[in-house]
Amino acid sequence: MGNKRRLERLQRRLQQIVGHDFVFSCPEDTIPYSFDATYAEGRPEIVVLPGTAAEVAAVLAAAYEEEVPLTPRGAGTGLSGGALAVGGVLLVLTRMHRILELNKQSLYAVVEPGVVTAELQRAAARKRLFYPPDPSSAEVCTIGGNIAENAGGAHGFKYGVTRDYLLGLEFALPSGELITTGGYTVKNVTGYDLSRLLCGSEGTLGVITKAVLRLIPAPEARRTILAVFAAFEAAAEAVSRIIDAGVVPAAFEIMDRAAVRCVERYLRLGLPANTAAFIVAETDGYEDTAARLAREVAALCRKAGAQEVRVAQTSAEAEAFWRARRSVSAALARLKPFKVGEDIAVPLGRMPELVNRLQAIREQENIDMVVFGHAADGNLHPNIIANPRDGEEMKRVRRAMVRIFDAALELGGTLSGEHGIGTLKAPYLHRALSPAAADLMQRIKAVFDPKGLLNPGKIWADRDET
Amino acid sequence: MGNKRRLERLQRRLQQIVGHDFVFSCPEDTIPYSFDATYAEGRPEIVVLPGTAAEVAAVLAAAYEEEVPLTPRGAGTGLSGGALAVGGVLLVLTRMHRILELNKQSLYAVVEPGVVTAELQRAAARKRLFYPPDPSSAEVCTIGGNIAENAGGAHGFKYGVTRDYLLGLEFALPSGELITTGGYTVKNVTGYDLSRLLCGSEGTLGVITKAVLRLIPAPEARRTILAVFAAFEAAAEAVSRIIDAGVVPAAFEIMDRAAVRCVERYLRLGLPANTAAFIVAETDGYEDTAARLAREVAALCRKAGAQEVRVAQTSAEAEAFWRARRSVSAALARLKPFKVGEDIAVPLGRMPELVNRLQAIREQENIDMVVFGHAADGNLHPNIIANPRDGEEMKRVRRAMVRIFDAALELGGTLSGEHGIGTLKAPYLHRALSPAAADLMQRIKAVFDPKGLLNPGKIWADRDET
Repeated sequence: MGNKRRLERLQRRLQQIVGHDFVFSCPEDTIPYSFDATYAEGRPEIVVLPGTAAEVAAVLAAAYEEEVPLTPRGAGTGLSGGALAVGGVLLVLTRMHRILELNKQSLYAVVEPGVVTAELQRAAARKRLFYPPDPSSAEVCTIGGNIAENAGGAHGFKYGVTRDYLLGLEFALPSGELITTGGYTVKNVTGYDLSRLLCGSEGTLGVITKAVLRLIPAPEARRTILAVFAAFEAAAEAVSRIIDAGVVPAAFEIMDRAAVRCVERYLRLGLPANTAAFIVAETDGYEDTAARLAREVAALCRKAGAQEVRVAQTSAEAEAFWRARRSVSAALARLKPFKVGEDIAVPLGRMPELVNRLQAIREQENIDMVVFGHAADGNLHPNIIANPRDGEEMKRVRRAMVRIFDAALELGGTLSGEHGIGTLKAPYLHRALSPAAADLMQRIKAVFDPKGLLNPGKIWADRDET
Repeated sequence: MGNKRRLERLQRRLQQIVGHDFVFSCPEDTIPYSFDATYAEGRPEIVVLPGTAAEVAAVLAAAYEEEVPLTPRGAGTGLSGGALAVGGVLLVLTRMHRILELNKQSLYAVVEPGVVTAELQRAAARKRLFYPPDPSSAEVCTIGGNIAENAGGAHGFKYGVTRDYLLGLEFALPSGELITTGGYTVKNVTGYDLSRLLCGSEGTLGVITKAVLRLIPAPEARRTILAVFAAFEAAAEAVSRIIDAGVVPAAFEIMDRAAVRCVERYLRLGLPANTAAFIVAETDGYEDTAARLAREVAALCRKAGAQEVRVAQTSAEAEAFWRARRSVSAALARLKPFKVGEDIAVPLGRMPELVNRLQAIREQENIDMVVFGHAADGNLHPNIIANPRDGEEMKRVRRAMVRIFDAALELGGTLSGEHGIGTLKAPYLHRALSPAAADLMQRIKAVFDPKGLLNPGKIWADRDET
């Protein structure tokens, strides 16, 4: 049977499952679903928006039967191409956006995959609870995508990442079978940990239809600290001093000169123009504890050579510091049409070396690179912008990317800290995984998805021998 | 070829791999390796103690080729039978007990699987670092076993369990291939999370040969609080009040009347004889923070009806409180020859119901049951002791066990919080896992171990239809 007829038949089946209103196939309807937060695109042939777990399962079963590839998608804020369709069906989970339970006595939330991260954070805060994972796109991105990518954010050093707040899952296999795993308790060793196997699997093993997330009591107080440095290395040095002193900030974010300039142009916050690096740190806990931690972080930043250190006096001021940090990525995208956001992580002690190597790469390859990220996680986001019509520049960009990956790996780090491999890093995965480990993972993939139809081309792809 | 000849040939191969001194097959040598911390036993035909990862891999490959089942084992402190041989080879990892690296700047340790948990804790403490997972057997048990069982302990509520400190692994597949997974950073989404799939897999997927563990800065101060209650329910009520107040103790351990009596007889600590329940709690952080938290925990215990609350004034006093808690299991084993230690966990808010149901089961089945555990994790260890020659009593014990499992599951909890399924709970696993989930897990098992020779009979076994 021809591909076209098969797709038409599948479309009719999907319409029967979710209703005509939630199945699209005209270009004007599918084009808006062809992008994520990368420069890449991928047009689905059918977009389907199920409203329940049973509908998700039925959609999967139908696509599997018709042997049509399917890509699951949340809000499309991904930075590695994981939610871009490769033709076939795009299964969008944004209609499933209910917080089903928020249990203060037992410290968990049960949510549908389309719940926006910041909405869960706010719902928790209203009950004096805290959901710490905090990707910069929290106001838009969804929990299902956060779990699929094991999203991190600014609170990783003290509070960990999405994986650390995952208690249980309901997910659908490509065949359409619904699986429940984990539960409602932190301690749970009943069978293999499928929840965490799904976490970070980038939608290649199953489609998350429900999640049980751990919440913790909200800290009583927070302090936000801004520190300005004349040299990026000095800011990296501040991280080492903080670790060495045993001080645990809730966040410790770093931005280089280019990032500061870029945000300043966009937000006009009045930051010093000659800043080479700045740090936005947060401390939390009891009122006294947060204050003492803030004093210690400030003192350690000064010892590391900070020119200026400010502790926010009002919540508006704190918000301004954070807005600067959160706006980098968006501000950057305005400068040049092509932007690639890397996401390497290295052991904390190797941060100074990483910073030096990034600087060398920037100079030697003569590229437009901005560096910012989660300094206390060893997780930096070197972002490169370029003009895609400038073939020479693009060649240098590609060379720089490979050198950045190699730098991270040579320093004992990883290709991706929190964005995932997706399509963009798939060709480079062989640099980070041994053939034996990759083979084992792909055999696990085949257990979940014997036909290889769930989110194909993500994580696993042909290698780039650059 | 006969089984006996096959074993002899394998034994010669193993002698070539690890040397004659580290392969045993005489009963006087294998009997000491036939027990763990349960009432069960399992005699291996060959005991082998490799000294390196390469030797582990070669031992596995040889056993796999000869199609002889193999069980990996650390210190044998397991409470679910996971490290008991079912004939075949017992691979003991205690010779691999080196801490290979303890990196303060990057906050991780690299260890061999045979490192004793408390030794890692002490090595970390010497550098003002903290490795929080803390099973009661920490002075004896080993990291490899902790990872295989996803061990927890007293610090779960604030600090999580072994899984939360696992950054990377090297492990050997049954075929003898060495796999490296994860790395040295908290943020790492490069490929599927095999580290956490291995964690809690009870030695059924691979044999851990090296682990990278996350360390955190050690808290500046600790406080230990003892609270004595006239009713167990009141002690459970204290947990609810603490959660409700948003207070986060580092530990909050509970023991019932029987546990208190039993320890008292054994340790003679001078605890009030009419105690129905007592709590050992710990707070930590900065000096001020630990003290404020201790005051709050004490006040909340009093509000919940504590008769007496003491904050330890010296480290010797704190140690005495903890010794009482840690000695329960050993003290119990002296009373009757048969002891089974359960390990259920329920959502925190369901603790009062669980406590009531356990009390009803104890009375209705007329069994000798002691309850203690990690109250702030919803993780209780109902321990039943009995005389195995009393057939009637043993029948009641078995009935009570099943009722305990059902109570945990009906309250949204789990069969095992931190001890694992092993052999003891394997017949009951079908009560907790759907057939679809169990089938998926077993297909994953088959990817790692196509011949089904690695730690057979553990987790996966025939069901008990009681």
